[in-house]
Amino acid sequence: MFDTLIKGGHLLTMSGDGVGFVEQGAIAIDRGVIIAVGPKDDIVNRDTARRVMDIQGGIVMPGLVDAHLHSSATMGRGWAQEVYPWMASSYGPLMTHAIEEDAPIWTMLALMEGVANGTTCFGDYEFPMGELVKQHVAIGSRAVLCEGVTELNWANREQWLAEGWKPGDPIPLDRAFGDESFASELKLFDAWDGHDDGRIKIIFGPHAADFISKELLLKVQEEARKRGAALHLHVAQDERENRATEQRYGLRAIPYLDSIGLLAPDLIAVHLSTALPDEVDLVADRGARMISCTNSIGIIDGVVPPARQFIERGGVVGLGSDQSAGNNSHNIFSEMRATAMFAKIQAGSPIALPAWQVLRAATIGGACALGMGDRIGTLEAGKQADLIVLDANRPPLAPLLLRPARNIVPNLVYAETGSNVVLSMVAGRVIYEQGEFTLIDRKAIMQDVATATARFTDRVAADRSVDALPIVELSRTGRH
Amino acid sequence: MFDTLIKGGHLLTMSGDGVGFVEQGAIAIDRGVIIAVGPKDDIVNRDTARRVMDIQGGIVMPGLVDAHLHSSATMGRGWAQEVYPWMASSYGPLMTHAIEEDAPIWTMLALMEGVANGTTCFGDYEFPMGELVKQHVAIGSRAVLCEGVTELNWANREQWLAEGWKPGDPIPLDRAFGDESFASELKLFDAWDGHDDGRIKIIFGPHAADFISKELLLKVQEEARKRGAALHLHVAQDERENRATEQRYGLRAIPYLDSIGLLAPDLIAVHLSTALPDEVDLVADRGARMISCTNSIGIIDGVVPPARQFIERGGVVGLGSDQSAGNNSHNIFSEMRATAMFAKIQAGSPIALPAWQVLRAATIGGACALGMGDRIGTLEAGKQADLIVLDANRPPLAPLLLRPARNIVPNLVYAETGSNVVLSMVAGRVIYEQGEFTLIDRKAIMQDVATATARFTDRVAADRSVDALPIVELSRTGRH
Repeated sequence: MFDTLIKGGHLLTMSGDGVGFVEQGAIAIDRGVIIAVGPKDDIVNRDTARRVMDIQGGIVMPGLVDAHLHSSATMGRGWAQEVYPWMASSYGPLMTHAIEEDAPIWTMLALMEGVANGTTCFGDYEFPMGELVKQHVAIGSRAVLCEGVTELNWANREQWLAEGWKPGDPIPLDRAFGDESFASELKLFDAWDGHDDGRIKIIFGPHAADFISKELLLKVQEEARKRGAALHLHVAQDERENRATEQRYGLRAIPYLDSIGLLAPDLIAVHLSTALPDEVDLVADRGARMISCTNSIGIIDGVVPPARQFIERGGVVGLGSDQSAGNNSHNIFSEMRATAMFAKIQAGSPIALPAWQVLRAATIGGACALGMGDRIGTLEAGKQADLIVLDANRPPLAPLLLRPARNIVPNLVYAETGSNVVLSMVAGRVIYEQGEFTLIDRKAIMQDVATATARFTDRVAADRSVDALPIVELSRTGRH
Repeated sequence: MFDTLIKGGHLLTMSGDGVGFVEQGAIAIDRGVIIAVGPKDDIVNRDTARRVMDIQGGIVMPGLVDAHLHSSATMGRGWAQEVYPWMASSYGPLMTHAIEEDAPIWTMLALMEGVANGTTCFGDYEFPMGELVKQHVAIGSRAVLCEGVTELNWANREQWLAEGWKPGDPIPLDRAFGDESFASELKLFDAWDGHDDGRIKIIFGPHAADFISKELLLKVQEEARKRGAALHLHVAQDERENRATEQRYGLRAIPYLDSIGLLAPDLIAVHLSTALPDEVDLVADRGARMISCTNSIGIIDGVVPPARQFIERGGVVGLGSDQSAGNNSHNIFSEMRATAMFAKIQAGSPIALPAWQVLRAATIGGACALGMGDRIGTLEAGKQADLIVLDANRPPLAPLLLRPARNIVPNLVYAETGSNVVLSMVAGRVIYEQGEFTLIDRKAIMQDVATATARFTDRVAADRSVDALPIVELSRTGRH
């Protein structure tokens, strides 16, 4: 007897090299694992099931993977727009008032948004991750987590300035601070890696080529390899990074990383916003994986990450929602649409980066990028039962056309907003159904959000120095 | 006594030259018209109300204006992707099997999608409009409708081919067909203009510079001016159009239209996709208004319509969802996000086309573009009570930050998907509330959609000639 049988809908299994469509399919699940997938008639006669889900008119597909986000930034959602540069002119100064004890509330808000919109696996990158792991545990989604290992210590800023440092200059590194953050990441790994039958996985998060010394970076790599964990690294996000590595090592960020052996299959390279075409190819050729945070980089920098080039070079690409101060949402449907469309308008062609490739990036691509391709990302026997069900009887999925051409994939990528996600399951457990979370108390959390919002904004607003920021000016002049 | 008092939320009135934010505002409505708007304390003591809506934590703003759409194309939603050119290689041949009697069902599906996502006014452009008007009447939204006046008669295609015509060549015009369509538009005007206290307004829809002769175009203009109705015209959508006007009149489309006096304040110029920078300025300088169908043109052509340039030149811009075969949704929140972000990545700057300007385009901009700026588009005393309420206690609108900088406008434009729209009102009447339509039977309509889908796809699939289309190939090879 199976635990669960899902039938009555169509499947996008994402197995093989396309989208793995199965008309009128079914999925049998037992002890959190997919036992069988295929046409309904092949599956339903195999055995009985304790729970039968009849999802007439629905679509079943692997849960979406948000392969790179900073979950606690929901605290300042929308506070990094219409300004340049975003970090220095809005988000940075405002966030100095963040209240660390409230970070779990903000992380939970991000996870709720993601889950409600079809994400079942989060590649969360935080400083510090500590208490935030418990939010991932609580909501029931899958997580591949890391804590930033960094020698960038903002507390030293006054000292840098006294020594002649100017914004845009390479940041003076703080070795002791780096060692501490590394120790903290190791502690995180020891405490949580493998939790709940592997639902929580810990990897390593060296910050960026210019924010960590070569010595510490190599030490992190060595330790990560010993533990079989990947490296989650911001790569070529900013020209500042290239300037810093050129000054220190005589090489732009990507050639520098290559020179010390960092570009390898265990590297998750996030952004590549400022990578030159040859550098993008180099990262792909070395077998490293790319995360495209398309909306975030588009809004805060006006730049299109090179997802299309990376895929065409044969590389693995996942999608990430990054941070909601500047995205401003944790919604992988929005990332899919932006990724496909930005590629089209950049190429001046409606053919560039078709929907099916982007749908792969949001599922099996993200899974492989996070080193989870053997466990999730497709609906196949032996994989974890991490999946979502969409109601295709509502716009923008209706009408669902099957003949002579199917319209499900383009409508998922170019039109679906996440609002038709009616069920999410992780390792066979339903974590979201018909607008409600099954493991957490949404109302209580939103009450906490309200309290934390008041506490935080009172504190920021009391700092008169922020009044001069462009983001504040937009409100004062009636534009926000 | 007022009919309705809305209180307990914040307002974006969109009046003035910004977004007209009112913290803790209220709106009094009587007989479909806004009587008073302002801070809650100023409004609630004026008079009592028959119905008080307490929308604690909500945001009230003008209903969104979808200033250009072809509503009945939901029939082929998602059937115009990843192909080039979309009309010839997918949509056109498939749509030859469309069943005209089912068009009202498809239009209703588009309107339901729009209303559920905050649209209260539709600039619908159809061939023929006839029975479709009744759908606009039934669902309760506001409509500015036209029927295409065109001398393009696809029924003559075999004859063109026999005479040596090739795809991309100027289309031979059919004068008698044009006169018929003009007569039909006049009939539409006489039957429906001003219906339901002006909720339904009829304007004139000459098709495009190359699909209608100069003589008929000028006749339509003359008649429209006599009746005080605007002209809704596709302008510079395609290079084919420029080639045709150059061949016939020695001028590209926009200079040709200018030479015969068409570029004037009563012109609604849709698309401008192939307009040169000087031509964009010329259209704006003549006082004509522009509609940007950003997602549609991005997906089907890989082109960014010049909304930013038009606004910077001082022109009025509205947003349109165009047609869902190639968009693939009727969701003005999606159009806002795309319009703001495409401008940014095109400019390589996060400052280009800020959120507040795009929010204006989706409200008062669209209203002015459709010639309705005196009746709708802002929340001001004397205007029609066309408004929406959003629940700001859910992502991506939560947390709602008010101090020191507000985040409502960027979150509406860059993150909101429409799923937080909890109420829509047109002329003081609630047409949508908490996921349900108040005037139509959603379930019965979705049953009709299912029946019409089966009827239509059976018919298309029976035509073996479509098997060779690229869009069909995508399904056959497992990509769709």
